[in-house]
Amino acid sequence: MTPGPTQVPERALARLGQQVIHHRTEEFRSLFAEVLEGLKHVFQTRHDVVVLTSSGTGAMEAAVANVVPRGGKAIVLESGKFSERWRLICERFGIEVVRYEVPWGEPFDPAEVARLLDVHRDAVAVYTTLSESSTGVGHDIEAIGRAVGPSGKLLVVDAISGAGVMECRTDAWGIDLLVVGSQKALMIPPGLAFVAVSPAAWRQIESVAQRPVFYFDLLAYRKSLAAPEPPYTPAISLVRALAETLRTICSEGIEQVWVRARTLARATRAAIEALGLQLVAKRPADGLTAVYFPPGLDGPKFLRRVESRFGVKLAGGQGPLKGRAFRIAHMGLLDELDIVSAIAAIELVLHEMGYPVTLGAGVAAASRVFADSSHDSVSSSRG
Amino acid sequence: MTPGPTQVPERALARLGQQVIHHRTEEFRSLFAEVLEGLKHVFQTRHDVVVLTSSGTGAMEAAVANVVPRGGKAIVLESGKFSERWRLICERFGIEVVRYEVPWGEPFDPAEVARLLDVHRDAVAVYTTLSESSTGVGHDIEAIGRAVGPSGKLLVVDAISGAGVMECRTDAWGIDLLVVGSQKALMIPPGLAFVAVSPAAWRQIESVAQRPVFYFDLLAYRKSLAAPEPPYTPAISLVRALAETLRTICSEGIEQVWVRARTLARATRAAIEALGLQLVAKRPADGLTAVYFPPGLDGPKFLRRVESRFGVKLAGGQGPLKGRAFRIAHMGLLDELDIVSAIAAIELVLHEMGYPVTLGAGVAAASRVFADSSHDSVSSSRG
Repeated sequence: MTPGPTQVPERALARLGQQVIHHRTEEFRSLFAEVLEGLKHVFQTRHDVVVLTSSGTGAMEAAVANVVPRGGKAIVLESGKFSERWRLICERFGIEVVRYEVPWGEPFDPAEVARLLDVHRDAVAVYTTLSESSTGVGHDIEAIGRAVGPSGKLLVVDAISGAGVMECRTDAWGIDLLVVGSQKALMIPPGLAFVAVSPAAWRQIESVAQRPVFYFDLLAYRKSLAAPEPPYTPAISLVRALAETLRTICSEGIEQVWVRARTLARATRAAIEALGLQLVAKRPADGLTAVYFPPGLDGPKFLRRVESRFGVKLAGGQGPLKGRAFRIAHMGLLDELDIVSAIAAIELVLHEMGYPVTLGAGVAAASRVFADSSHDSVSSSRG
Repeated sequence: MTPGPTQVPERALARLGQQVIHHRTEEFRSLFAEVLEGLKHVFQTRHDVVVLTSSGTGAMEAAVANVVPRGGKAIVLESGKFSERWRLICERFGIEVVRYEVPWGEPFDPAEVARLLDVHRDAVAVYTTLSESSTGVGHDIEAIGRAVGPSGKLLVVDAISGAGVMECRTDAWGIDLLVVGSQKALMIPPGLAFVAVSPAAWRQIESVAQRPVFYFDLLAYRKSLAAPEPPYTPAISLVRALAETLRTICSEGIEQVWVRARTLARATRAAIEALGLQLVAKRPADGLTAVYFPPGLDGPKFLRRVESRFGVKLAGGQGPLKGRAFRIAHMGLLDELDIVSAIAAIELVLHEMGYPVTLGAGVAAASRVFADSSHDSVSSSRG
């Protein structure tokens, strides 16, 4: 139950285990066209989506190095390990960064984004994050989009662990570049990354005279979208597996997937609070929940016990939260009973380690959320 | 029988179809350490090998953008679609290219490389190709290495379709950066690429003040070799499959793999000549053979018939050879009888299309090569 790589469904695994096909064939192009349509549904965009063979970080680099010229200015919203990466990438490419930082666990204030855009009228783009995996914060991209819109600047969103699990409307919210990874809500192994690109973003990219990119040259990917095929040899097996998971997601409908994840997230938070534990995020994401270890508890030992005794793998904290918090994901294949099991495991190990816990209190709180939201047509995704 | 993606062995496919594991675990690190050792054996190096999640083109970019600063100079040996890519990447990164071009199908002259190095003493590196997939030429990297050695400049070799099939001794030949892909002789699907880096190459990389790289920052990969793990989420499934194919290659021994491929290549060439067809390469590689269509033959129709009638997929020509030549690979899982079958299919379709061919002549010539080289302990790799 870590925030990626998530569990891969059986049907996608079966595809991975099939003999590889050649990518310059009608068979592959037809599959690739289907994948692009599926991704557009998941990202809620009518515009272009490019598929990169890389980790999500490669796609972040593409969304920087193609977009802002050396010496240009970018506004970076920073609050956690992954939003920090936007700044590090910008700095590496000689881009001047206007840094809007809030403490880890807190959400960005859209009014401050509007103020910064007003001060820095020469900024090319605003870089931010949908779901910050290091803190479990879900930022209000819709409101940030409303703040960015009137400026005419680009809005670039790292949705690597957010898209496909929590509400994300690329076109409606005015997102110009949306960056997504394969090993989270899309439920295939790592190795593919995606960038949704708006027409305004294409215009900006075309206007940059010197883009220090070759493998990540987004214009090369756009050119080959006509076929459609990627310009360089793609991770063919992963594309085939993705076609499977997208079929499942699209037949359920992405809005229904969002509803289900939101319910799992609410249930998890209710359980955590019932156990007297404290959430890291002031504005929690739907794809994962970060929780402070109670004072005095040996956190690493707790995580090891949960895994060795119950086979449930939770993630530790990152950066300043290392040893201070753990993270529990609820994206992809997970359903209500997975959450119940994980909460029960957490309760039992806390009890065993001497933390005062009412056994069953967390599970009861989660179950009440599930009972109350049964009218939201929450159904298992287990296929 | 295309020059990549090649057929994936059953055991590697089985690994691909297994549930994904997390990459920040002892299980993954131990597997990754084994993979690094296997790659060192295949590439014949004692130095560092980094694993990138990308196509081979990404690794080529890494071997340029980390190594030669903007405004620096590189000598590029160009003769085919893939060696041309070295130049295109260099140009994209603002590097001054000294271009040594020979006609497609001809090998580079090491004496000319020495002469260029003498004239361009400010060049940082020489970029060249082991096996040029577009022409089937195998360049004499050993001799080029002897020409580059005294200059103290770096030798960078694209061995994407060459390493693991034809003789390639990274350390002994003085190769400073060796770039390799996963979907050729290493017999796994595309999605991973490798760069072997010499100590001299690391010193050069460290000396470059501004490297326009983030995802492909080789120093970040070197740092995380201590664990060992990649700095960004790798294509975990492909790494596991690679562990399988490397076990097979290492247990046979890479020198024996080279002997086997050389025999398959010699047999293929003997067959082609016996059929009166003409090779494209003046100095042929061991991993693939490029052959001109005979005058008057409808090439694309020939390739379609070979595939539709016999299920044998040959590759067409690229660039100026498009419609003028076809390519037959002999890398990875292929054995003697695969070559015999492919030659028989070529004979039959040529005959059917009215080309004057003595049926069986090609097969007989190939078989004579196999019979003569049985003392080279050629054995099937079919597992």
